[in-house]
Amino acid sequence: MTYSESSVRLIEVGPRDGFQFETRVMPTEIKLDIISDLIEAGLTHIQAVSFVNPKRMPQMADAEELLKALPQKEGVIFSGLALNIRGVERALKAGLTHIEVSVSASNTHSLKNSGMPLDQAILHGKEMIRISKQGSMNVRAGIQCAFGCVYEGKIAQDRIASMAEEFAYAGADRVAISDTTGMATPTSVKNMINCLIPRLNGCPIVLHLHDTRGLGLANVMAASECGIREFDSSFAGMGGCPFVIGAAGNIATEDTAYMLQSLGFDTGINIEKLARCSFKAEQFFEKQFPGKIHRLFQYRCVNAAPGSEGLGQGFPPA
Amino acid sequence: MTYSESSVRLIEVGPRDGFQFETRVMPTEIKLDIISDLIEAGLTHIQAVSFVNPKRMPQMADAEELLKALPQKEGVIFSGLALNIRGVERALKAGLTHIEVSVSASNTHSLKNSGMPLDQAILHGKEMIRISKQGSMNVRAGIQCAFGCVYEGKIAQDRIASMAEEFAYAGADRVAISDTTGMATPTSVKNMINCLIPRLNGCPIVLHLHDTRGLGLANVMAASECGIREFDSSFAGMGGCPFVIGAAGNIATEDTAYMLQSLGFDTGINIEKLARCSFKAEQFFEKQFPGKIHRLFQYRCVNAAPGSEGLGQGFPPA
Repeated sequence: MTYSESSVRLIEVGPRDGFQFETRVMPTEIKLDIISDLIEAGLTHIQAVSFVNPKRMPQMADAEELLKALPQKEGVIFSGLALNIRGVERALKAGLTHIEVSVSASNTHSLKNSGMPLDQAILHGKEMIRISKQGSMNVRAGIQCAFGCVYEGKIAQDRIASMAEEFAYAGADRVAISDTTGMATPTSVKNMINCLIPRLNGCPIVLHLHDTRGLGLANVMAASECGIREFDSSFAGMGGCPFVIGAAGNIATEDTAYMLQSLGFDTGINIEKLARCSFKAEQFFEKQFPGKIHRLFQYRCVNAAPGSEGLGQGFPPA
Repeated sequence: MTYSESSVRLIEVGPRDGFQFETRVMPTEIKLDIISDLIEAGLTHIQAVSFVNPKRMPQMADAEELLKALPQKEGVIFSGLALNIRGVERALKAGLTHIEVSVSASNTHSLKNSGMPLDQAILHGKEMIRISKQGSMNVRAGIQCAFGCVYEGKIAQDRIASMAEEFAYAGADRVAISDTTGMATPTSVKNMINCLIPRLNGCPIVLHLHDTRGLGLANVMAASECGIREFDSSFAGMGGCPFVIGAAGNIATEDTAYMLQSLGFDTGINIEKLARCSFKAEQFFEKQFPGKIHRLFQYRCVNAAPGSEGLGQGFPPA
């Protein structure tokens, strides 16, 4: 898929990254209701499931059941995450069309997360790509901890670039650079992208950012200036990484869409409808998530926001 | 005061904008303790008091008492806010050297906030500047709601520029452009600054930003690219405007300093020491404020953050 210069696609990872981070398991029918609303709000790519060990991650145990029941709509992609070959095989069997596989760039994080040292994890990643392509899935290869690791500190940019090259060469349809720990800065984002683009031979780059240090949207802005047109984000700013303490909070879809729209990008997202999804999730989990824009709808305060005239009018407080 | 290209000064407004937003009144001695710690953390300009009606704002009723007791340190400026001539006269009498006066660019907000329509408020603003200069105070003239108003929506940029020109001509030493409602976007920030600079004849511009819609740091980045070198910020991200619902949250000093440092600017701020101030405030107010970086110190997670190696080591959880 190609994008016009002025369009950005936000890949909604809340139903995977968000829901798996909460202890309370959301029933499949509530997930389906929220995912329908996300589509209604204009999201065209939703990472809906994860094929991980259901004993370790009961929040994602309904992956197969959910996939079967997902509403079909033209132009809407559902994808799922796999961290090992067993997960890829489950995804294939379940009829998934778009898979995200993922490998950590940090040896220590990889050992803790997957039990594999880095070199083995990279080989395993390439094998996941090969099996996925053999099964005719569209594959995105993710590199976790690309901007630093809480165990190892800064990761050499060349390691990320080499991994990205290997995954692209192995057949990945796109490469996702993940700031798992929220350590990216506008400068490191620009350096990374400007290093990767000439080495990836046209393979598109997706950015997966966390707002751990408050720099999430500044990083999106920096990346958009370098030509990045696909970002993962999570409605209400849900999410995190259960293996890295303090890594909570993906960039919030509403806030990211609002900023991108203010920068002149089309996202196709109706922010008010999306905020309703966030309130449903907050009601279910009985907590407030860190996104900012959806909170304003609760207080009916966005009516006069530049670029969002009329939003929030008549919107019921949660 | 002039700054090198690579230095940014953060003006700490937490003790004024932050403390006045909380219902609980902080005793003068706790304010003094925290302000001492803020200086120790490297802040060189602290907006410490507000000369407003003590019945309306009991949090600021100790302005004179606090000013007398503030620790004196070379290179550290303490300033105070006044919204009317009575406030300016109190500031003069109290021996304040640096005053911030402020006028809303929104007629409706001005009426609600000061009881004066816009044209009268501008005249009153110029009179505040005249009296302040007569009393040999350094004066900063602020323009509230410069990027939009929840009552009136977008405010014409030319109105802001004309007000800024009038205040500079009346003798203001600097002009502060306030995004009281958090409606600024990177694009509107750039447009505003590029419009103001050629009209202000060298009078420095300070930006006062709120993170209401999550765009605070993206706006700082945009402004820094246009040459702005002074920003208001609030430790832990405290603050808001009691007259505008939903306008909570100044940009957090820690997060802003972290981003600016990552962009290569020197702020002179020790983020770990500043985070300790944030914990003191959170303990007193018995709540968590929305800043991100100080929270990481609580979980000892910043050790490996690029650009902040070593921060957080041995830092006791609050």
